[in-house]
Amino acid sequence: MSTLKGLQDIVAAQTAISDIDGKLGKLWYAGYSIDDLAEHSSFEEVVFLVQNIRLPDQPELEELTERMVNEREAADFIVSLMPTLAEQTSPMSMLRTSVSAASAYDPDGWDQSPEANYRKAIRLISLIPTFIAYYDRNRKELPIVEPNPKLPHAANFLYMLTGEEPEQRAAEIFDTIFILYADHTMNASTFTARVVASTLADMHSAVTAAVAALKGPLHGGANEQAMRMLEEIGEAPRADAFVRDLFERKQLVMGFGHRVYRNVDDPRATILRRLSKELGEAAGDTRWFDISEAVEKIVREEKGLRPNVDFYAASVLHYLGLSTDLFTPMFSAARAAGWTAHIREQYSDNRIIRPDSDYIGPRDQRWVPIEEREHVVAS
Amino acid sequence: MSTLKGLQDIVAAQTAISDIDGKLGKLWYAGYSIDDLAEHSSFEEVVFLVQNIRLPDQPELEELTERMVNEREAADFIVSLMPTLAEQTSPMSMLRTSVSAASAYDPDGWDQSPEANYRKAIRLISLIPTFIAYYDRNRKELPIVEPNPKLPHAANFLYMLTGEEPEQRAAEIFDTIFILYADHTMNASTFTARVVASTLADMHSAVTAAVAALKGPLHGGANEQAMRMLEEIGEAPRADAFVRDLFERKQLVMGFGHRVYRNVDDPRATILRRLSKELGEAAGDTRWFDISEAVEKIVREEKGLRPNVDFYAASVLHYLGLSTDLFTPMFSAARAAGWTAHIREQYSDNRIIRPDSDYIGPRDQRWVPIEEREHVVAS
Repeated sequence: MSTLKGLQDIVAAQTAISDIDGKLGKLWYAGYSIDDLAEHSSFEEVVFLVQNIRLPDQPELEELTERMVNEREAADFIVSLMPTLAEQTSPMSMLRTSVSAASAYDPDGWDQSPEANYRKAIRLISLIPTFIAYYDRNRKELPIVEPNPKLPHAANFLYMLTGEEPEQRAAEIFDTIFILYADHTMNASTFTARVVASTLADMHSAVTAAVAALKGPLHGGANEQAMRMLEEIGEAPRADAFVRDLFERKQLVMGFGHRVYRNVDDPRATILRRLSKELGEAAGDTRWFDISEAVEKIVREEKGLRPNVDFYAASVLHYLGLSTDLFTPMFSAARAAGWTAHIREQYSDNRIIRPDSDYIGPRDQRWVPIEEREHVVAS
Repeated sequence: MSTLKGLQDIVAAQTAISDIDGKLGKLWYAGYSIDDLAEHSSFEEVVFLVQNIRLPDQPELEELTERMVNEREAADFIVSLMPTLAEQTSPMSMLRTSVSAASAYDPDGWDQSPEANYRKAIRLISLIPTFIAYYDRNRKELPIVEPNPKLPHAANFLYMLTGEEPEQRAAEIFDTIFILYADHTMNASTFTARVVASTLADMHSAVTAAVAALKGPLHGGANEQAMRMLEEIGEAPRADAFVRDLFERKQLVMGFGHRVYRNVDDPRATILRRLSKELGEAAGDTRWFDISEAVEKIVREEKGLRPNVDFYAASVLHYLGLSTDLFTPMFSAARAAGWTAHIREQYSDNRIIRPDSDYIGPRDQRWVPIEEREHVVAS
């Protein structure tokens, strides 16, 4: 029995939600290329796509959009926790607690029917931006901004964060990031969600666990760490020396390399690179784009590594005005579309996910009374 | 690429914490047989064992016991949530939210050093019974009972639930159940905890996710469902007809069969069967034991299936006075010993756990504007 550390290349589930060709550098949601979706679709349309494995027609999209608007309001209990959570804990820890607490207020309760789980999925996707924005406003000692039913999902999130209706292009770009982060096959948080769902635990349990997994710096934390690196570098001419110094100290450059895309660009990074440049130029300050480009150049030359989605997401989200420690929560807000789709898919054809372990500890130990124990480390 | 649904027989990690021989029906923690541990050890000693892969000497056990006593008090914020959680949600949902919220009040904060993670592990093991007892007292509209520093871990849990110091034998038996539930290699909740830990998310994130997974009826829920079945049967002579009726309707009998133990008794069930009988006789009411034995007989005869840990745990926990919906939370309280040990083991030699998926959805879809879409289900 060989141990497959990290379960690399082990197929844990079949899915119709997304697909990657790591050699071609292609990503599809339900057969639609990420390039087409980023260019033509809205996040709402992508939510429908990953949940239903086809694009909506007009009445279906309107119905879903209306439902998402109607599900944005957080329960009073969770709103009442926000001042304390804002004072005491980090954004992802807040989000994990809020999603968990929200289960008590879901109108579908413990109903596990496919219809109820679809409603719960849409509800969680709709609610997560509200949790994040309320938390952020609380910690900044600003009044909370109620959701604006006239705005689409992504634009409303920016509105709740800033208190101002975003400009059209900013809203479009934020919507595009939501699309790019919506799903990505069997990443660690999606896999976590499916393992939890495989015990037939409820939708909120599975999403809570996914948030917990995304919180890890090896997974969702990379976009935040990438931004902190850009800030530390400070200006493009300093990128070269900074990155070479990282290499000398055997440190990782965050936001580069991917287990799936090899020797080919992450298609999401390609889109985000363009948007980072556009936002920099529009702001009359291309500093973050310039630093990013300089870092990309040296990492590519020296290590042959290419940026992944998190690297250019950092500067884009920064240009859009998000606090750096909200990048991973924003990732959660978008990935909730994929998580909930995977959870529903797992429920629809379930078997409990229970791998084996390989025992490497001491064997055949004889229990002796405590006074007779010698202080020997187990062999 | 074949899909390994459920990841059966796939080795996901190496571990020194526990080992099972499914053919011999043997379970060991760090090389010590579960029979020896159940007979001779305390839960505190087993906590030391699974965390350190050896038994403690006297000063070590005293130090750990004192630490566990000192870490029982819940943060005021979490105590303040209990009336609402007790009113609004289920015990496992409460526990998931409380463990998540507790991260903000851990004195080690975001310190991820091995020493801090050991302290966090002991803290969570110590705190979980308090969360459960406070919740239970709240929903019963009884005053909460503060932890009693003179009592060992399991006895104190019973004390906080009932407000009375348990009799010695009841405390011993409850302690034994804690030992029996403390670890069990790579079950779904432990695996969930390790997947979350593999992103380097914090200890509380990983335990929150484990609670979420244990909540599922295919995993931790089985002891509760077994008890509900015993209650539905009501008396031993009705067991035969009841179980045969279940078989005819192709229903599962909860608490029987195990992916690991095959054609051999689960060694934990053997111990619990004896304790169920003892408690029934001591109470002068062997009804729950008698029904259990009758169910076991018919399931074994008809299906060749044997009881697992959850089946006899049901009547034992019922005799000890626990509400049925606290059986899975009690399982969590005990398994927290194993979860946290596995999380620390994962951190100590980590690689992110990220399996693959096999794409089975539509391919090469052409994006068309919404007004041109025909309402066709994807091929």
